[in-house]
Amino acid sequence: MPESAGRVRPVVEGVRPVVDAGRWPAKATIGELVLVSADVFTDGHDDLACTVRYRHDEDPTWSTHPMRPLGNDRWSGQFPVDRLGCYSFSIRATVDRFGTWRRELLVKANAGQAIVVELQVGAALVADTTARASRADRAVLLELAQGLQAASEAAARGDPEPGLDLATAPALVELMARWSDPAWAANSDTYVLSVDPPKARFSAWYEMFPRSASSDPSRPGSLADVEARLPYVAGMGFDILYLPPIHPIGRTNRKGREGDPGGGSDDPGSPWAIGSATGGHTAIHPDLGTFEDFDRLVRTAARTGIDVALDLGFQCSPDHPWITEHPDWFRRLPDGSIRYAENPPKRYEDVYPFDFDTATWRELWAALYEVVEFWIGHGIGIFRVDNPHTKPMRFWEWLIPSIKADHPEVLFLSEAFTRPRVMEHLAKVGFSQSYTYFTWRNTKWELESYMTELTQSAMSDYFRPNLWPNTPDILHDTLQHGGRGAFVTRLVLAATLSSNYGIYGPAFELQEHEPRSPGSEEYLHSEKYEVRQWDLGPPDSLAPLITRVNAARRAHPALQQNRTLCFHHVDNDQLIAYTKTASGPDVVLVVVNLDPLHNQSGWVHLDLDLLGIDPGRPYRVHDLLTGARFEWCGPRNFVALDPATPAHLFRVEGSSETAS
Amino acid sequence: MPESAGRVRPVVEGVRPVVDAGRWPAKATIGELVLVSADVFTDGHDDLACTVRYRHDEDPTWSTHPMRPLGNDRWSGQFPVDRLGCYSFSIRATVDRFGTWRRELLVKANAGQAIVVELQVGAALVADTTARASRADRAVLLELAQGLQAASEAAARGDPEPGLDLATAPALVELMARWSDPAWAANSDTYVLSVDPPKARFSAWYEMFPRSASSDPSRPGSLADVEARLPYVAGMGFDILYLPPIHPIGRTNRKGREGDPGGGSDDPGSPWAIGSATGGHTAIHPDLGTFEDFDRLVRTAARTGIDVALDLGFQCSPDHPWITEHPDWFRRLPDGSIRYAENPPKRYEDVYPFDFDTATWRELWAALYEVVEFWIGHGIGIFRVDNPHTKPMRFWEWLIPSIKADHPEVLFLSEAFTRPRVMEHLAKVGFSQSYTYFTWRNTKWELESYMTELTQSAMSDYFRPNLWPNTPDILHDTLQHGGRGAFVTRLVLAATLSSNYGIYGPAFELQEHEPRSPGSEEYLHSEKYEVRQWDLGPPDSLAPLITRVNAARRAHPALQQNRTLCFHHVDNDQLIAYTKTASGPDVVLVVVNLDPLHNQSGWVHLDLDLLGIDPGRPYRVHDLLTGARFEWCGPRNFVALDPATPAHLFRVEGSSETAS
Repeated sequence: MPESAGRVRPVVEGVRPVVDAGRWPAKATIGELVLVSADVFTDGHDDLACTVRYRHDEDPTWSTHPMRPLGNDRWSGQFPVDRLGCYSFSIRATVDRFGTWRRELLVKANAGQAIVVELQVGAALVADTTARASRADRAVLLELAQGLQAASEAAARGDPEPGLDLATAPALVELMARWSDPAWAANSDTYVLSVDPPKARFSAWYEMFPRSASSDPSRPGSLADVEARLPYVAGMGFDILYLPPIHPIGRTNRKGREGDPGGGSDDPGSPWAIGSATGGHTAIHPDLGTFEDFDRLVRTAARTGIDVALDLGFQCSPDHPWITEHPDWFRRLPDGSIRYAENPPKRYEDVYPFDFDTATWRELWAALYEVVEFWIGHGIGIFRVDNPHTKPMRFWEWLIPSIKADHPEVLFLSEAFTRPRVMEHLAKVGFSQSYTYFTWRNTKWELESYMTELTQSAMSDYFRPNLWPNTPDILHDTLQHGGRGAFVTRLVLAATLSSNYGIYGPAFELQEHEPRSPGSEEYLHSEKYEVRQWDLGPPDSLAPLITRVNAARRAHPALQQNRTLCFHHVDNDQLIAYTKTASGPDVVLVVVNLDPLHNQSGWVHLDLDLLGIDPGRPYRVHDLLTGARFEWCGPRNFVALDPATPAHLFRVEGSSETAS
Repeated sequence: MPESAGRVRPVVEGVRPVVDAGRWPAKATIGELVLVSADVFTDGHDDLACTVRYRHDEDPTWSTHPMRPLGNDRWSGQFPVDRLGCYSFSIRATVDRFGTWRRELLVKANAGQAIVVELQVGAALVADTTARASRADRAVLLELAQGLQAASEAAARGDPEPGLDLATAPALVELMARWSDPAWAANSDTYVLSVDPPKARFSAWYEMFPRSASSDPSRPGSLADVEARLPYVAGMGFDILYLPPIHPIGRTNRKGREGDPGGGSDDPGSPWAIGSATGGHTAIHPDLGTFEDFDRLVRTAARTGIDVALDLGFQCSPDHPWITEHPDWFRRLPDGSIRYAENPPKRYEDVYPFDFDTATWRELWAALYEVVEFWIGHGIGIFRVDNPHTKPMRFWEWLIPSIKADHPEVLFLSEAFTRPRVMEHLAKVGFSQSYTYFTWRNTKWELESYMTELTQSAMSDYFRPNLWPNTPDILHDTLQHGGRGAFVTRLVLAATLSSNYGIYGPAFELQEHEPRSPGSEEYLHSEKYEVRQWDLGPPDSLAPLITRVNAARRAHPALQQNRTLCFHHVDNDQLIAYTKTASGPDVVLVVVNLDPLHNQSGWVHLDLDLLGIDPGRPYRVHDLLTGARFEWCGPRNFVALDPATPAHLFRVEGSSETAS
C-alpha cells in the first residue's frame, strides 16, 4: 500500500453524469453548464472541501470549480463546456482541516468553553500552511499565525474576541483555502463527457419526401423542388429538414401502392429499397436530380438555418450493385438465393439485409463507414438511422465514435422503435438523439410517467428523446379519430415536453388522417409507395400554429432543455399541466386538453415554490399561442380548454428566480 | 480489433447482484441459491441462449447454469454456494441459431409458407455442429442432418410433417444445445460474491452487560455469571450473545452514574472507556474473571448453539497502556495534552480517539488487526463494532477483508447510526450486518418505505439490516410511553421484518422504560455507568413471548431471509400487514397493531396471487403466538388487535406454491 493510501479519508461515489459506471460517455452540448454531483463523505465530523476537475481532451491542464453540499452527503458543482468533442472530469475531496477548526472554535466559544488551546492549534495550522504558500502569501500567513498565538494569550487573559475576529477574518479564510493541503485527497474515477453541437439538445425536425415536393401536379418532385420549399419549412421555424433515402430504388420485388408486395412495376417503389443498376448508397435517384442539385440544396438550406438530414438505411434492394460486387455480405440460402428481410411470418422481399455475421465483416463495416464519410463530404452533418436495432450494437459502438473522432459535430438519430433496453443501449453507444414511445403515450398517466423517466432518471445523462406525433410509418389512432384538436394537442405536447421533436409533413400540418385500413397505423396512399401532391395553402393548415409554437421554443430557453420538466397536479385527468424553467428567470407553463373532442376544465395546482413565485402576490400568465393574458394568484387557478384551442402555452411572468 | 470482436452480437448489462459496478463484492450465505439476473439482448429478432458461469476461488474450473428470460430482456438464473469465501461469476450470452431456426420454421409452417429451403438450412446447421460434437454425438447429428435433408424433399413433395417432427424432436434439441457454438459469445464482466456463514443472514442477538449478570445482589456479575445465564438466553432462542467491552476500564475522568462527567471515582465506569494499568484491548477486566473463565464461557455457549460476540471499541481511556507506549497514535495539543473525543460542544473526556491521520498509521492498523486476531484466537467469530463511522472507511476496507482472508467465517456488525451514505458505505467495504434506523421508524409509512428500501432495492445485495427495538443508548419514546403493547409490537416487527435482529436485555424483556430525563433516549440507571441487578422471573416478563417468536423464526424458512418481504394493504393506518414466503411452500403473514394503547381493527387485503393461494377456496391462518386458528377466504379478511395481544404471527396454510 502506498505511503499515503491509509490517510486518504474522504470517499467519493455515485458521481453523475456517469453512464454505467463510466462504461459509456455521458452527453452534453456546447454552451451548457454541466451539472456534476456526487456522494462525498468522510469518517467522523470533519468538514470537507470538494472540487470538480475537468479538461477538454485537447487541454494540457485541468481546470477546477468548487462544489457545494446539497445535504445528505450529496455535493453539486458545474463546469462550462464550449468545445465539441470529449471532456474528462473527476471529483476531488479533501478533509478541510481549517474549516473544521474554525467551525468547532465558534461552537466552543458559543458554548462558553475555553478556546485558548484551540487558538494555539489554529496558529499551528496556519503556520503549517506557509510551507505550501507563495512567498507573498507566506509572509501574510506567518503574521496571521502570530496573531492567533497572541490572541490565544488574550483569551487566556479572559478576552476571546481577538481570536474569534481573526479566525473568521475573510483574508485568513481565503488564504487558507488557496493553500489548502492537497495531500491525501480522494479522487473519483475520471469520467468522459461527449459534447455535441447545440442542435443535439434543441432541434425541430421536418420530414418530407422529395418526390412529393413538386408544386406542379404533372411531375414528381425533385431536390430542386425541395429547395423551393425551404422558405415554407424555415418559415414554420424548423431547423432540420430530414429526407427519406434519396438513392436509386430497386426494381426487383418492388412494392406497389399501399405496400402491395410485388405489385410495383409501374410504381416508384419504397425509397428504403435502396440500390439499382444506377447505384447504391452513394448515388442519388436520377429522378431527384444531380449532386449539383443536392449540394445547392444543402447550401441554400444552411443559409436559412436549416441542416439537411439524410437517412442511413443500411440494407439493399436485390438490384443494389453490392449484391454482385460483395456476395459475401449477404446470407445465401442452400438454393442459391439470398435471404430477404423477414420477421416470420412477415416478409420484406424488396430488401436484403446485410449479413453482419459474415467473415468479411471488416470490409462491410468499412464500406458503411465510407457511406457516412461520403455524405459528410457533401455537407451532411445529421443522419437519421433507419432501424439501427437490426444491426449489431457493436457496429454502432464502433461506427459513431469513429466518425465523430474526425467530425465531432455530426449527429445521429436512432429510429429504434423496439424494446426499452435496446433503445437505451443504442443511445449509450453513441446515438445523439432517439425516437421514443411518445407516439403511443396519450393519457396523462402515460405521458407523466414516461416523460419523467426520460428526463429525470439516469437515462437523461445519455438518452435525448426526440418526440414525433407522426411518422410515415405511424398514423396513431388518436390522429385518425381526434380531429384537428388531436393534431394541435400532440404538436404542443411534442414541442414542449421535449426540446427535440419533429413532424412528418406536409401530412401533419394538413392533418392527413385516413388509415390504409381500419385498425392500421399505415397511412392511406402512403408516400412510402407513391408520389403525392400536397396543397400547402388550405385555410385550416396547422402551419401558422406550428410557426407560433416554434417561435415560442426559440424565444424561451426553458423549452430548449428537458432537465427542469415538472408536472403539476390538475384535478381533471383529461388536463395535463407542466412547467419548464431556466435562469433569467424563464418560466413556461403548458396546459393541454388531452380529450380532443370535448371541452375540459379544472383547477391547476402549481408548485409556486419551485417556480419562484410569491404565493401572496398576483402573477401574469401570457398565452404565446393566442396572445391571451390572465392574472393568477396563488397555487390554484382555473383552466378551461376546448377542442378548437386545446392548449395553453403560457409564459409565466412574476417569478423571482427558479430552482433550476 | 480482434477477429471475432465484430461478430459478438449479444449485449449483457445491468447484472445483479453487483455493487457499484463491481467495485465491491455482493454478499450471500452458505446454502443459498444465489439469484442472478441481467439485461441480455441482441440486434434483430434472433433468439439468445444465456448462462451464468461461476466458481469458488479455489475451484480450478467454472460451472455453468442456464438462465431463462423473464420478459423485457431481463434474464434470470441461480447458482448454489456451499463454501465460505469468494465466488466469481459472469454471464455469457450467445445467439441461439438453432433455436431461432426452429422457432421461425414453425411460424412459417403455421402460416402455410414453404419450408423446403428452411429444412435445408436446418440440415446445414446440424451438419456444421458435428464438427464440435463428441464422436458418439457426431454420428447421431449426421444422421439427423440427413434426416432433415430428406424431410426437405418430403416437404417439396407437399408433406411438411416429417420435417416438423424432426425439428422438434427432443433428441435434436438436446444435442444442438449441448454442442452449440461457443464462438462470438458476449461475456459480462466477472463479479465477486462474498459468502458468509448462515448466521450472517439469520441471527437473533441478545446483548447483556456481564457485570449486571449476577444473581447474587451482594456482588457484581462476572463471566461465570454470564455462563450461568446461558440457559436463559438459549431458552429464549437467541443464538448470538453480545457482550459490551470486557476490558479494564480507565480511572481518569471516569464517568459516574447517569453519565455524570468526572463523577465516577466510586463507580465502575463505562466499559467503552477501554484500558487501564492492568491492560487494554487484549485484557479482561479483573472483576469479570480470567481468560480461563472466558474460554469456558465461549465453549459452553457454543454447545448451546450460541456464538459469543465481542465489542470492538477502537478508542482508549487516558489510562490505556498504548497512551504511553504509542504516543504518536494520539493527537497531542500544543499544551502537551492529548485531544479527547468530542463533537463540539459535546466532550467525551474519558475517551481518547486514535489519530488515524498519524504518520505511523501502519503500526496503528497492524495493532488493531492484532486485537481482532487475538480474540479470534479465543474462539470469537462475531464482532459488534462500536462507531465504525468515526474511523476511516479505508481502514475497514483493509481490515475486514484482511481478517476474512484467513478467517472467512468471521462476521462484523456495524454500529453506525449516522447518515445513509456512510452506513451504506460501511456495508460495501465489508461489514456483514448493519444497525439501521428501525428504532426510529414507528409509523406504517415509515416502516413500509424503509423496509422496502432495505430489502427490495440494490442495497439488499450488500447491506444486511439488523433491527434492534432498543440498545443501551436508545430507549425510544414509543417504549417509554407505549406500555407492554409497545414492547410486543416492536419485538414482533424487528424479529419478522428482518431475518437479523437483536434486543438489549434484560432491559427489554423486563420492559425497562424510564428515561434518564424527559425527552431523553438514555435509560435511567443506565447499565453503561453502573451495575444493575435484574430479577428475571416476574410474571409479566416477555421471555415466554420472545421464546415463541424465536421458535417461529426457526421453524419458518420464510422468516430466515428478507428477499420476499411484501407489504399488503390494510384499510387502517394503525395496522401493518406483510408476508414473507419461501419454497415449501412456507408463507408467514404478520399483522401488527402499531397503536400500543388502543384496539384497532381493519380489513387486510392480501395479494393472493403472490402467495399462491386460490382466491376461490378457503385457507387457514394459524397464529404461532397464541395458537388461534382462523379460516379465511379470498383476499379481504377482518383483523382486530388489542394492546394485550397486538400482533398476529400467522402461518398461512393452503398455498400451492409462491413466487419467490
